Amino acid sequence: MVAGNFIVNFEDRQKKLVSAMQAKGLEGIALNAGPSLTYLTGLHFHLSERPVVAYFTPGSPPVIVLPELEAGKLAGVTYPIQEFTYGEQPDTWGRVFNEALLAAELNGKKLGVEPRRMRFLELSYLNTGKLKINLVSGAECLEEIRIYKDNTEIEAMQTAVKIAQDAIRAVIPLIKPGITERELAAELTIQLLRHGSDSQLPFTPIVASGPNSANPHAFPSDRGLQWGDMLIIDWGASVGGYYSDLTRTFSLGEIDNEMSTIGQVVKDANQAAREIAAPGIAAQEIDRAARQVIKTAGYDQYFIHRTGHGLGLESHEPPYIRDGNPRLLEPGMTFTIEPGIYIPGRGGVRIEDDVVMTKKGLHSFSDLPREVQLLDI
Amino acid sequence: MVAGNFIVNFEDRQKKLVSAMQAKGLEGIALNAGPSLTYLTGLHFHLSERPVVAYFTPGSPPVIVLPELEAGKLAGVTYPIQEFTYGEQPDTWGRVFNEALLAAELNGKKLGVEPRRMRFLELSYLNTGKLKINLVSGAECLEEIRIYKDNTEIEAMQTAVKIAQDAIRAVIPLIKPGITERELAAELTIQLLRHGSDSQLPFTPIVASGPNSANPHAFPSDRGLQWGDMLIIDWGASVGGYYSDLTRTFSLGEIDNEMSTIGQVVKDANQAAREIAAPGIAAQEIDRAARQVIKTAGYDQYFIHRTGHGLGLESHEPPYIRDGNPRLLEPGMTFTIEPGIYIPGRGGVRIEDDVVMTKKGLHSFSDLPREVQLLDI
Repeated sequence: MVAGNFIVNFEDRQKKLVSAMQAKGLEGIALNAGPSLTYLTGLHFHLSERPVVAYFTPGSPPVIVLPELEAGKLAGVTYPIQEFTYGEQPDTWGRVFNEALLAAELNGKKLGVEPRRMRFLELSYLNTGKLKINLVSGAECLEEIRIYKDNTEIEAMQTAVKIAQDAIRAVIPLIKPGITERELAAELTIQLLRHGSDSQLPFTPIVASGPNSANPHAFPSDRGLQWGDMLIIDWGASVGGYYSDLTRTFSLGEIDNEMSTIGQVVKDANQAAREIAAPGIAAQEIDRAARQVIKTAGYDQYFIHRTGHGLGLESHEPPYIRDGNPRLLEPGMTFTIEPGIYIPGRGGVRIEDDVVMTKKGLHSFSDLPREVQLLDI
Repeated sequence: MVAGNFIVNFEDRQKKLVSAMQAKGLEGIALNAGPSLTYLTGLHFHLSERPVVAYFTPGSPPVIVLPELEAGKLAGVTYPIQEFTYGEQPDTWGRVFNEALLAAELNGKKLGVEPRRMRFLELSYLNTGKLKINLVSGAECLEEIRIYKDNTEIEAMQTAVKIAQDAIRAVIPLIKPGITERELAAELTIQLLRHGSDSQLPFTPIVASGPNSANPHAFPSDRGLQWGDMLIIDWGASVGGYYSDLTRTFSLGEIDNEMSTIGQVVKDANQAAREIAAPGIAAQEIDRAARQVIKTAGYDQYFIHRTGHGLGLESHEPPYIRDGNPRLLEPGMTFTIEPGIYIPGRGGVRIEDDVVMTKKGLHSFSDLPREVQLLDI
C-alpha cells in the first residue's frame, strides 16, 4: 500500500503495536484521527466533530468507527479491517460505538489512548456507562514503535529540511524594514509550497521581531520590521507527512553588544549539544550540555525551555531533550537541538537544527549558517 | 484590547459565558488551547504536549495554567487574570494544576469542558484523584455566546470570503490536464496568502479530481488532472481568525450527461436551501429543502452528508444544518449551504456558499457562479 510516495507495510506496524501493548499490559489501543492512526493504517481523517476511532487488539483485525461519508477512504486498504459507519444524527452514534467496542471484544478491558489526541468527545463514546472499559495512557506503546524511523522516513525528513532551507534562502531578500511579521510569514509559507512542501505545513511559521523575539512561541503580528531588530524565524516543511522544524535568528543592521553576545552563546550551546549527542547518551545529557554553556555565560535564567524535542509525523514528539529525561538516544531517533536566550522587552536568539542519531553518531539534516545573520541592506 | 485588527471587550464576553454556564447549571468552564479560549481572552496558544487550561467561574477573575515559556503572552492582557505557570518537568505539572483548581474553588464542583477540544492529557490533570470534579460537556454554553456574530465578526468573514474568491479566480487559469491535485492545492494556498489570508488557513484546500471527486473529504493526491474530469475544490481563507469555506465544481472539457445533470441538481438544491432560509426557520428545514430537490431528481442516496454547518472561528461549528436539528436560525448566525452528489467511482459535485442570517433574511457572502464551470482550454 502506498502512503504518499512511500510503500509501507501497515500490517507489520500493526503487529508491532500489538506486541508493544502486550508488553505494557494493555488489551487494546484506541486511536482517533491523527498521525498515529495514519502511521498504522495509511488513512487520513480530519479531526472534526464527527469522531473517527480505530481499535487495535491482539489476534483480530483492526476495527474502525467512522462517518458514512468517509467510508470511501477504506476502498484502497489492503489489510483486513472491520468497519462500523454512522450517519449524520449524533444521537445514533453511541449505539454504533457500542457495537464496535463489542466487536473488538473490549468490554471489561484495559484500553490505551493517546493523551494528546483523544478528546472528551471520543472518550464520551468509550465511556457510555453501558460497557466497562478502563481507559489509560497508551502513549508509551506508540512512542515505542514510532520513535525509530526507518530509512524511508529519514529520507522524507531530509527532504523536508532541504525544502525548508531552500525556502528561507528565497525569503531572506525580502527581510527589510517595513515588511510585517505577518507578511513575512505568508511569503515564507509560499516559498515552502513552491519548493515542494505538502500543503499541510507542520505549523505556521513563527516570525518574531524586536521585542516579540523574546517570546519563544509568538504568533506573527502586524508589527513592521525596524532597523536594530532581532528577528527569530521558526519554520518547517512537510514531505509525505514528515516534518522539518528549523529556527534561525537574524538582525536588521547592527545590534548592541549584548545581543551579539547572546547570539554567540546560543550558537555555542547548539554546538555543544550536537557534539555530545551520540548513541547511548541520555536525552538529559544533551540538555545539560547546552544549558551549561548558557549558564557559564550568565544567561541561564533566560533559557526558559528544553533543548529540543523529537520530530517526525508530529512537530513535537518523543524523545524530549530535557532535564530529567533519562531516555538513551539510539539510532533512528530524530529530534531538534534548539537552545535559546530570551531577554524580556529586548529580544531573543534561538538556533534550531534537525538531527538524526545514527550508529556512527549524530547527523544534522540542517546546515544553514548558525550565527545571527546580520542583514545590512 | 486588540485581537488581530479588532477591538474586543473580553470581560464582556467572559460575563456572558458565566451567565450561560449558570443557566445550564454549571459552576465553571475549563477551556484548553483553541478558538474558544482565544475568543474569551484574546490569547493564542498552540495545542501541544504542554497543557494550557483556563478556568472561568462566577464572581472571580479567570485562572490560567500555562508553561513558563508562554507567560510573556499575558503581558498585554487588560483584564484581571490569575496565572499559574509550570516548568519543563511533566512530573511537576499535576501539583500546579491542583493549586489552580483550588484557587478557582472548583473542588467538588460541576465543570464544563469542550468535548471537541479537551483532551485526555488535560483531563488527566483535572482528574488527579485528589480533587473531586464532575466533568461534563460545556459545549452548549460556548455555543450560546459564540453563535451570534457581531458586526466586526461578520465583516471579518465577508473579507475572508472575498479573499477566497479572489484566490480561486487567480488559480483557475492553472487548471489544465497534467497538473496534480497536490500542485493545485499548493497554488491555491499561495493565492490565498497573496490575497491577504492569515497564514493559518482554516484547512488545507481539498482538490479532488475524477473519481476522487466522489469522496467528500478527499486529501489532495498526486493524481494528474485529465480531460473529462470532474473537479471539486473546497477552500477557505482566514481573517483575524474568522474563516471562509467555499466549494465550487469544475469540469475539464465536456462531461457526460449524468454529470451535467447532477451539476444542475446540486445548483438547484443550493438555491432551494438559500431561498427557504429566513429568521425563525429551523436548521432542519433548510436541510430538507436541499434534500427534497436531490430526492426528486433521484439522487438522494448519493447526498451522503448534511446540507451545511456553522462557520466562524472554526471551520465546523454550530448551527449544524442537518436533519433532526430543530434549532431556529436567528440574525447573526453564520453557516454554510453545501449540498453535494457523489457517485462512487465516477465523480461528484458540491456547491458551497457562506451565508449570514440577518433581520431582513439570508445574505450570501459568496457570489461566484454556482454552475459547474466547464474549463475548455
